[in-house]
This record gives sequence, structure tokens and C-alpha cells, in this order.
Amino acid sequence: MTHFEEEWHKMLSGDIYDAAMPEFRELLMATRERLWRFNSISPADIDGQRAILKSLLGGCGERFHINQPFRCDYGCNIYVGEDFFANFNLTILDEAEVRIGRNVMIGPNVSIYTACHPLDPEQRATFAEWAEPVIIGNDVWIGGSATILPGVTIGDGSVVAAGAVVTRDVPPRVLVAGNPARVIKTV
Amino acid sequence: MTHFEEEWHKMLSGDIYDAAMPEFRELLMATRERLWRFNSISPADIDGQRAILKSLLGGCGERFHINQPFRCDYGCNIYVGEDFFANFNLTILDEAEVRIGRNVMIGPNVSIYTACHPLDPEQRATFAEWAEPVIIGNDVWIGGSATILPGVTIGDGSVVAAGAVVTRDVPPRVLVAGNPARVIKTV
Amino acid sequence: MTHFEEEWHKMLSGDIYDAAMPEFRELLMATRERLWRFNSISPADIDGQRAILKSLLGGCGERFHINQPFRCDYGCNIYVGEDFFANFNLTILDEAEVRIGRNVMIGPNVSIYTACHPLDPEQRATFAEWAEPVIIGNDVWIGGSATILPGVTIGDGSVVAAGAVVTRDVPPRVLVAGNPARVIKTV
Repeated sequence: MTHFEEEWHKMLSGDIYDAAMPEFRELLMATRERLWRFNSISPADIDGQRAILKSLLGGCGERFHINQPFRCDYGCNIYVGEDFFANFNLTILDEAEVRIGRNVMIGPNVSIYTACHPLDPEQRATFAEWAEPVIIGNDVWIGGSATILPGVTIGDGSVVAAGAVVTRDVPPRVLVAGNPARVIKTV
Repeated sequence: MTHFEEEWHKMLSGDIYDAAMPEFRELLMATRERLWRFNSISPADIDGQRAILKSLLGGCGERFHINQPFRCDYGCNIYVGEDFFANFNLTILDEAEVRIGRNVMIGPNVSIYTACHPLDPEQRATFAEWAEPVIIGNDVWIGGSATILPGVTIGDGSVVAAGAVVTRDVPPRVLVAGNPARVIKTV
Repeated sequence: MTHFEEEWHKMLSGDIYDAAMPEFRELLMATRERLWRFNSISPADIDGQRAILKSLLGGCGERFHINQPFRCDYGCNIYVGEDFFANFNLTILDEAEVRIGRNVMIGPNVSIYTACHPLDPEQRATFAEWAEPVIIGNDVWIGGSATILPGVTIGDGSVVAAGAVVTRDVPPRVLVAGNPARVIKTV
């Protein structure tokens, strides 16, 4: 493994990695250019959009749609299952893996974050950075304007209410709402 | 009535409708293309922007302004009164009607949702979908980054604080804030 | 001082000013055109982006980066210190000054507001408007999807959690979270 491959492996493993390495910046920039094209082309050019997304995402099914605009960091750490739909303005920071199951719906203006910085300002200034994966089960509905924080797992069949800020794991088949999100009821 | 007209009528009436009908997708795509033009033209071209909005919205006054970017689903189910102003990045999912009164101000990054899906994952998988209207009275101010949920009515003269998530009706002349939004005081 | 200079001074001083004066609209429009260019150019054109930002902001260091898209009202009332980084979709309403210290990180979809309107609907209808400055100290990290309200000061070294709505001052070296944001712990 090259030094960069080691740091990339650390990033995906949840270890502190050297985010200031130029190779990370180059990959971020390559993704940004592809997203710039994705976000600029006509919404009628469905095939053009799908081609960009297929080349960008780590994995996807045959049936999926992401409405423009969409933004992410690397793209290749995002895996979406069959029958995935995301509405306008999805943001995913995929320093760690973001794994999304089958038949998942995401409303507009949803954010999924995996990137972490130290809370201590002296440690933060050293550029120490790590990431925690987000796992979203099958048949999940994430309501509009919801925010999913690093390390969160959302169980099969659950619903995240619009505007919720999800800071902890969500069990299967429940509705969570609020900031921080709490279980409201089983579904 | 054609079959599609029946389903469109169901959508606007709050009944479960067949959102998978291709006619819905065609209308969504036509709106998306017009919004793509609205969001792409120079901000200096105020006349060009107004012309697109006037052709898109169900109804509007003589004096109104919506800052780019703006996103909605159909457009024709949105009615805004005289002296309407909305700042950057307004999102409206107008499966049901969104009726906004006179002299209403909307801050940046506000979302208004009417589209509903079943909480039960088995029912959700059948594509059953319905919508609930949002009614915003006269002289209302909706602060930046607020989210308004399906079925909500906001009374005349009220204020929604920045970042509030409005899940229930708001009486006239009050300030609501928080997630879920609660009445803080009368105004 | 011209009449407009007097009103501009009032705006920056926290006094009620005449926001309907055409000179304000002209300045807003000039900024919007520069931001339109900033948000439209290739993400690979880092030099082009920096040149626009340097001409737009009231002050900045040698090392800073703001990811596209970025939106603000005037730009010239925003001052960012050395080693500033802001991720996608930052919104700043800079009617009052927004002063950001050294070594500050801002996550995606963050909003910073200074513009205020009267809560009373009759007063609001007169276009009375004022603004309150936002001060962000050194070594602060503002998490993604956070909202900072008019008049807020955030102390050195503090962290605003993702999705927080900050309505009151934040002391140095604490973590705040929630809506409204409260101190969770010292860091």
C-alpha cells in the first residue's frame, strides 16, 4: 500500500487520518467537477444524470433517482439499494461509508454527515479528522430537512420526521422526531 | 374526467392517489425544466424571472419576488397574495394547495411540505401517497430555515422563528419557535 | 453624508433604517450578480472563485475557502479571519457585520442571519427593519445545518453541534446543541 492508500484505509476504518494530504483534495475536486456537471445539466436529461451518478456512487441498483442538486464529498463511499429516491438538495459527506438499503425515500434538503473533528480546539487545530459510517436500513423514509449525524444506524422500516436531527441509532419500525430526535411511536 | 384528471382531483382533495401514473411524472418534469431556467438566468433579469414565475404559479399578485434558487413540484398549486417576498432557496412540495396571504415574508432556506406517505412500511411500499394543504395567512413572517409540515395553517400576523419546525396549526398573532414549534408569546 | 450613507450607517449601527431605498436594492443586486458568477464557475477554477470572494467580502485572510454555492446579501459586511473554511451552501444575511475569527470551520448548509423585522404585524408592514451583528470567535467549529440568529456571539474554541439553532450567546470552549441550542458540556 502507498502512504495515501494507508490514509484512505484509515479514513474508512474510523481512525484519525491525515486529511491534509493533497491526494484527498484531488479526489474531492474530481467529485466536485462531476457533481457540477450533474447539477448543471437539464433535468430532462435523465440518462445523462444517471450516467454521472453511476460513475460517482460506490454502488447502486437499477432503479434509483436523485433530484438535482446533489452534493457529496467522494461519492464512491455511498452505496444505495434498489428503488432509491432522493428529492432536491441532498448533501452527503461520505468520508466514512454511507450504506442505504432497498426501497428508501429521502425528502428534500436532507443532510447525512460522517465527518468528525475533535471537540477540543487545540486538537482540532492539528487537522486530526476521522469519520463514522451511517447505515440506513430497508424501507426507510427520511422526511424533508432532516439531518443524520455520524455513526447513526437507522433500522428497517423506520421513519425520520421532517426537520429531525438524528444523533443516535434508530431501532427498526419506529417514528423519530425532534432535535435531538426521539422515538415518538412504533409503526 | 379522464383517469388522470380523477387522480389529480384525488391528490388535491387529500385522498390517496396513484402517484406512479406517468402523467404526474411528466408534469413534475415540465415544472423542473421551468425552474431550471428560473434558477439559471441572471439575477439581474428580474423581468425574465417574473415571467417564468407567473407562468408557473397557480396565482400571484402584481408585487412579489422570489429569490433564486426556488424549487417546487408542480407550481400550479401555489397561490401567493400581493406583496409576497421569499428569500434564497425556498422549497415547496405542492401536491396539495399552498395558499399564502397578503404581505407575507419568507426568510432563506425555508421548506413547505404537503406530501405525505404512510408510516407503515408495508403500506408505504405500495406507493400510496396523499397530500395535505398548507394555509399561510396575511402579514405572516416565516423566519429563515423554518420547516412547515403538511396540513398546517398559520394565522394572520403570526411569526415563525428561524429554524422552527411547525407541525401543528399556529393561531393568529403569536410567535412560535422550536422543534416542534410551540407558542412563545402573542405579538 | 448623503441620505443613503446615513441609512447605511443606521443599518450597521443596529438602528431602524429605510430598507426600501433603491440604493439598498442596487447593492443587493450587484452582490447577487457576483455570487451568481461565483456559484456558476467550475469548482476547479479555485483562483477565479477566490478573486470573486476577495472582491466581495469586507475582509479575509490569505488562506480561506468557501465551497460553492455561497449566498449573502452585501458581502462587504462579512469579515473572515485566517484559515477559514466553509462547506457547501453557506447563507449569510449580512445587514449587520458578521465577524469571524481565525481558524474557523463551518459545515454544510449553515445559515447566519443578522436581519430583523418587528414581531408586531402592523409595525412590520411599515418596512421597519434593523440588524444585529454576529461575532464568531477564533477556533470555532460550526457543525452542518446549524442556524445562527441575529445578535449572537460565539466564544473562542466553542463547537455548535450539527442542526443546532443558536438563539443566545455561546461562551468560550463549550459544546452547544439543540433548538434552541443549550450548553451540553465544556470542551
